[in-house]
Amino acid sequence: MDKRKIFLVIADGIGDRPVASLGGRTPLAAAATPTLDRLAAGGITGLLDPIAPGVCAGSDTAHLALLGYDPYRYYTGRGPLEAAGVGLAPRAGDVAFRCNFATVQERDGALVVTDRRAGRITERTAELAAALDGMKLSGGVTALFKESVAHRAALVLRGDRLSGAVSDVDPHSEGETLHPCRPTVAEGDPEYAAARRTCAALEEFVRRGREILDAHPVNDERRRAGLPPANCPLPRGGGLVPHIPPFGELHGLRAAALVEVGLLKGLLGNYLGFDLIECPGATGGADTDIGAMARAVTRAWDACDLIFVNIKAPDLAGHDDAPGEKIAACLLVDRFLALTETLWHAGTILAVLGDHSTPCEVGDHSGDPVPLLVHGPGVRPDAVEAYDEFACAAGGLGHPRGTDLMPILLNFANRYTKFGA
Amino acid sequence: MDKRKIFLVIADGIGDRPVASLGGRTPLAAAATPTLDRLAAGGITGLLDPIAPGVCAGSDTAHLALLGYDPYRYYTGRGPLEAAGVGLAPRAGDVAFRCNFATVQERDGALVVTDRRAGRITERTAELAAALDGMKLSGGVTALFKESVAHRAALVLRGDRLSGAVSDVDPHSEGETLHPCRPTVAEGDPEYAAARRTCAALEEFVRRGREILDAHPVNDERRRAGLPPANCPLPRGGGLVPHIPPFGELHGLRAAALVEVGLLKGLLGNYLGFDLIECPGATGGADTDIGAMARAVTRAWDACDLIFVNIKAPDLAGHDDAPGEKIAACLLVDRFLALTETLWHAGTILAVLGDHSTPCEVGDHSGDPVPLLVHGPGVRPDAVEAYDEFACAAGGLGHPRGTDLMPILLNFANRYTKFGA
Repeated sequence: MDKRKIFLVIADGIGDRPVASLGGRTPLAAAATPTLDRLAAGGITGLLDPIAPGVCAGSDTAHLALLGYDPYRYYTGRGPLEAAGVGLAPRAGDVAFRCNFATVQERDGALVVTDRRAGRITERTAELAAALDGMKLSGGVTALFKESVAHRAALVLRGDRLSGAVSDVDPHSEGETLHPCRPTVAEGDPEYAAARRTCAALEEFVRRGREILDAHPVNDERRRAGLPPANCPLPRGGGLVPHIPPFGELHGLRAAALVEVGLLKGLLGNYLGFDLIECPGATGGADTDIGAMARAVTRAWDACDLIFVNIKAPDLAGHDDAPGEKIAACLLVDRFLALTETLWHAGTILAVLGDHSTPCEVGDHSGDPVPLLVHGPGVRPDAVEAYDEFACAAGGLGHPRGTDLMPILLNFANRYTKFGA
Repeated sequence: MDKRKIFLVIADGIGDRPVASLGGRTPLAAAATPTLDRLAAGGITGLLDPIAPGVCAGSDTAHLALLGYDPYRYYTGRGPLEAAGVGLAPRAGDVAFRCNFATVQERDGALVVTDRRAGRITERTAELAAALDGMKLSGGVTALFKESVAHRAALVLRGDRLSGAVSDVDPHSEGETLHPCRPTVAEGDPEYAAARRTCAALEEFVRRGREILDAHPVNDERRRAGLPPANCPLPRGGGLVPHIPPFGELHGLRAAALVEVGLLKGLLGNYLGFDLIECPGATGGADTDIGAMARAVTRAWDACDLIFVNIKAPDLAGHDDAPGEKIAACLLVDRFLALTETLWHAGTILAVLGDHSTPCEVGDHSGDPVPLLVHGPGVRPDAVEAYDEFACAAGGLGHPRGTDLMPILLNFANRYTKFGA
């Protein structure tokens, strides 16, 4: 049987709840989306729970699940994703942290955080990061450190038998002293010794890092300019880096992704090994150049077995509690599919779904399921004729979960292996 | 509340995908199946994923799941099932292998496989097998060996602390040397030592087995007749035999099965402890004597709490990409149910489903879900009035998984136990 291409389109945060000003409809139900409705009518639909019913997913955990990685196994905190995102290339067994450049002051022998973002520093953080990167710590641990955007940075601790079960040094509010780093597992736990070792390494890194940064010429200059010095690295969100099989290897596919925002570039590009499709017009906002995105995907098409696209605009409108803008974002998704019809109209398995719901009334992600449609040869059409949260509830795919998506798509694409004989 | 009998009928591989020559219908949807449709109208339906959404099941893993055995726990490879199938009665802790009788030649001190099936040998393999059966190996391991049909055989290694995590000696292609047997777990793994021990026993068995077979009178005779000697046992598919509670014990039932093919006779009869119902007219093909099958079930009825039947014909038609034959096979299933109406028309819980889909367009199993109907007293009827892949998608049972089936049936049969108080 011929293997089929897979075209996986995520309308970020597209799921919503009834909106009173739309007569109880959701933005997606209220939007005129002829291409999506045609796809629903010719395909099979359902409601998908990104993690499990009622569980609210982040962008990171949702995308992990949708791409076939159990988030309870592969998501160990923000640190590993941040470290991959900035290009630190964390390895399995490392422990990685999200960091801020912060301003601290010594008071009565303790270090008090006076500005968690060092005046939202934007310049010369690369020089500061370089001064910490490669630091050799006791116990054979090495620290890798790299700046990200503005006050953000990432830290990797590399050494034998480390653990992600450690608390944050970041006190998460200003005017407080740096917190000691403590194991988050009990003393009898098999991970306790590794957590102790990791706490010691992290505290040493912060202490020495603070001394180095405090004396750094960049900070002398900031003080002279009346700016708060970025004189302390402030780690949080530590997590053990798991062994992550690259997406293409895991599923036996040549895969590329067109994503608009940094988090997903880091997750898919650096962490999961997707080839990233360049598209300068893809802004991640309502003003994104959807035509340029369609052209970029078309150019990449022939070299790939699976192309992944994330359109960010619906999520932003949900976060902003802007139903009108969310309707406009749904139209953008519909237009993208109309512009790529030559790619999916024959022989391709096309899936369209949200990564999670971002209801306007919430202004943030929620645990409501997302509408899912799959269209292509071999698919058993159901009676659903519209793509929205209400219609898809009666769809033939029922209520699968995020981690079911890749098996479902690989099945339709004839790219599965048999379990048993 | 009275306990009810359960009549579990598997239409093997009946699920399909839309077939263009049938106007986009599936063979089951295109077939005129009045009895099945009447059962669907009076019962409750759904789509069942034998393993999980999108996951393609083998006959073995699917039947394990449908009978209440988690295949991820109880399916450890082909070896244990093959060994049970030939009557070696493997025990928990044994490691079992599928074997071929093969022809090998010594070249430059290495053993090269020149024919993996020893000229598709059909005769006197029992004599060859007897020469290997009961071999005492180093480390207190005993080898049990028995021929199956033609060039096939099975091997059981019995001893302390063995492991199924070992690679195949069978190179899987001709002209190659025998492969060394190696642990498939890493050196730090807790199972590594047991795997090493098992590799050593397996290699000794192959080496000595080859010497014994090469010198065996049966092979002298084959050489004189110009036939390739069956001079080497070639093991593959090793798996640790799990502790399998017999089906009747597991569910508290007197259970019998009428199945047509060897794999299922071995699985249900030898491995799961079903009483097998004899039916010489059951051929496993389109020419099976469905009337004889109905009579055989009727005779066995009174002595059983659960009767399991597998009708193989739909699967064969799917493998052959023969939609017309698959329609005929659906009619066979319908006729079987019409002929057994006196058994299920009152007081019985009847379930009809596929074990997996075998779509004509694929010519093999796929991960598409199968239509499920349950009929009998106490069942809440849904609005579905036909038994096929499209109609059952809207059924009241939703989308259960294979391992959900037995709890669902035991519930309707009032044969459940309460979890909690």
